[in-house]
Amino acid sequence: MNRLHALTDGVYAIAMTLLVLELHVPDARSSSELLTALAALGPNLFAFALGFAVLGTYWVGSAVNLSHLGRVDRAALFLNVLQLFFISLLPFTTAIIGRYPDEAAAVVLYGVHLEALGLAQYAHWVYVLRNPHLAHSPIDPRTARAVTTRILFAPTVWAVAIVLAPFSPRLGYAVYYVVLIGYVVTAVRDRTVLR
Amino acid sequence: MNRLHALTDGVYAIAMTLLVLELHVPDARSSSELLTALAALGPNLFAFALGFAVLGTYWVGSAVNLSHLGRVDRAALFLNVLQLFFISLLPFTTAIIGRYPDEAAAVVLYGVHLEALGLAQYAHWVYVLRNPHLAHSPIDPRTARAVTTRILFAPTVWAVAIVLAPFSPRLGYAVYYVVLIGYVVTAVRDRTVLR
Amino acid sequence: MNRLHALTDGVYAIAMTLLVLELHVPDARSSSELLTALAALGPNLFAFALGFAVLGTYWVGSAVNLSHLGRVDRAALFLNVLQLFFISLLPFTTAIIGRYPDEAAAVVLYGVHLEALGLAQYAHWVYVLRNPHLAHSPIDPRTARAVTTRILFAPTVWAVAIVLAPFSPRLGYAVYYVVLIGYVVTAVRDRTVLR
Amino acid sequence: MNRLHALTDGVYAIAMTLLVLELHVPDARSSSELLTALAALGPNLFAFALGFAVLGTYWVGSAVNLSHLGRVDRAALFLNVLQLFFISLLPFTTAIIGRYPDEAAAVVLYGVHLEALGLAQYAHWVYVLRNPHLAHSPIDPRTARAVTTRILFAPTVWAVAIVLAPFSPRLGYAVYYVVLIGYVVTAVRDRTVLR
Repeated sequence: MNRLHALTDGVYAIAMTLLVLELHVPDARSSSELLTALAALGPNLFAFALGFAVLGTYWVGSAVNLSHLGRVDRAALFLNVLQLFFISLLPFTTAIIGRYPDEAAAVVLYGVHLEALGLAQYAHWVYVLRNPHLAHSPIDPRTARAVTTRILFAPTVWAVAIVLAPFSPRLGYAVYYVVLIGYVVTAVRDRTVLR
Repeated sequence: MNRLHALTDGVYAIAMTLLVLELHVPDARSSSELLTALAALGPNLFAFALGFAVLGTYWVGSAVNLSHLGRVDRAALFLNVLQLFFISLLPFTTAIIGRYPDEAAAVVLYGVHLEALGLAQYAHWVYVLRNPHLAHSPIDPRTARAVTTRILFAPTVWAVAIVLAPFSPRLGYAVYYVVLIGYVVTAVRDRTVLR
Repeated sequence: MNRLHALTDGVYAIAMTLLVLELHVPDARSSSELLTALAALGPNLFAFALGFAVLGTYWVGSAVNLSHLGRVDRAALFLNVLQLFFISLLPFTTAIIGRYPDEAAAVVLYGVHLEALGLAQYAHWVYVLRNPHLAHSPIDPRTARAVTTRILFAPTVWAVAIVLAPFSPRLGYAVYYVVLIGYVVTAVRDRTVLR
Repeated sequence: MNRLHALTDGVYAIAMTLLVLELHVPDARSSSELLTALAALGPNLFAFALGFAVLGTYWVGSAVNLSHLGRVDRAALFLNVLQLFFISLLPFTTAIIGRYPDEAAAVVLYGVHLEALGLAQYAHWVYVLRNPHLAHSPIDPRTARAVTTRILFAPTVWAVAIVLAPFSPRLGYAVYYVVLIGYVVTAVRDRTVLR
């Protein structure tokens, strides 16, 4: 269990920090040129912030969900490694939207990636629900439904973003941000104390 | 003990995440060019997935094996560092098969690398078996045999892949994937609960 | 809780270590050329040391502050992720002052970054103070005031550095280093034993 | 305490894994060219192995020494961060000897770096000895002397390597390896069980 947490936290921490490698120091000959060049990094900073928000939100979600888990078997470990696969790929798709912020293909690819991540998280959760002997303490149906809703909410809305992005990449981004801000607002208002 | 776990999980997490650095954002001028360029990244994505699967499988194996260990001495730490040496080299050989997917030399090199990794894991396990005072609780002969078989199975088959690769690199890849899928299937069917 | 620590320590450890990627091996044809080229890396080494000192100081501060926290809710997790956002950006702004050590804009940008980091740390601390049920044990007013002073001291002085840097970048650096050295001296003289 | 371990293990794990980034995939048009190109990477692989051996040896040493520590104060944390500073710089000096294996300046620089690392480790240990209230359990004089000898042995011999390297870089490398192999052999023969 502890090792699953350690690997998970490690991959999240590294993916979060690798995002910064896509921010290249610009060429400039004066302070004013430097400021102009930094302003031109806008799309990259935007992608960095988006990627970080996605990772931060999924990490908080993962920390909350895994807190229900008291024991693991090897299948649960592999389902977790599957999630980490999509987490470790995120710096790549984030770099793509940083470089091609206005291309619909980039925004759709990002949405498909988030979709895969959300479904992997859902698969892990379903496995926990179907193997109650792995749970720390019995998960009551109300909590189970609440967590399921929280996990499935994002992939549902990512699907909307994927459909909208070919018409307007910016609308796609707007959807991504609305979901993430929604999670943060819900999280901040939910004062449940975690162990 | 905890520190051995922390270092091990850290190196695995970083090696997994560094694999993504070999996926370079392609140059493109439109959404369709971007899609074509991403499709051309196929071999790299293939190598990324293979590398991730190897690391994930060995990590699960290492988590299961180390769970038998209750105490360490300095020799056990060094045997573990030896494994981590081969783990931390993996992004390099993975990058090589990503760049030269059809060269037999790349596939053979990868196999030799996996062979070294498997033998280092075996050396560690033999050390644990020979120093039963390090074990968490006595390891019964049946478990010992099962773990030994599981550890030696992969290196045996890697040897087959190394022999086959010069004739057909693709056959070599097929062998790698069959082994990894075999591990996942076995793992999923084995419902032993881990601490 | 443990996972919050693990993610935090992971991001700090990676940000610390990523700083080294800005130190590029110079081109040289002889030992004396190599020494000259290494000497020319002075500003980069200076930025590396500054970035490391900032991360080290904030990490020690974070370890001390989080030791008051016994429980978390999701808002506390997000406030922590916000701090990690600014931590993971630090290799970027550190690289900028390594490349443009004499540009006022670089020094000001660094100061603004440190300001944001300090305020995020302050927001987290205020949240802990306002939610005493999250504290490990009641925080007495004197400790609360001491921690608040320690957290707010740096952002106050960073503001001075931001004002001074346009007149003299070196004066800005001097302020950064004085603050960091001040923290180390205070820390070394304060013999409070931490759990 | 746990956080000190986590940060330490994180920095070691990342430094170990970042070493691999200096191994660049070579350009080649056939399997035989690839093998030739890989053989030409010899010095880099040699530096990689040396860097990994140094990090592995210091990590085992650090794990053993820190196991005496039961409590920390802020000065002990800063002394540890100082060690991590030199650890996180190691990928840089390792890359330099990988690129300039035959330049005396590179070998001397590496020795000076190891010297600084060893002295930082010694400073930490002296601090622990002078503040016995930080120790897990009283450190008896015999253990204290043994650890002191083990810590000071390496820096003494690094000094010899620094003096010899200008005459023969290879002699310098030989000294580095002899010390590391000496540590491994001693470690393997010392069967003390660690907690």
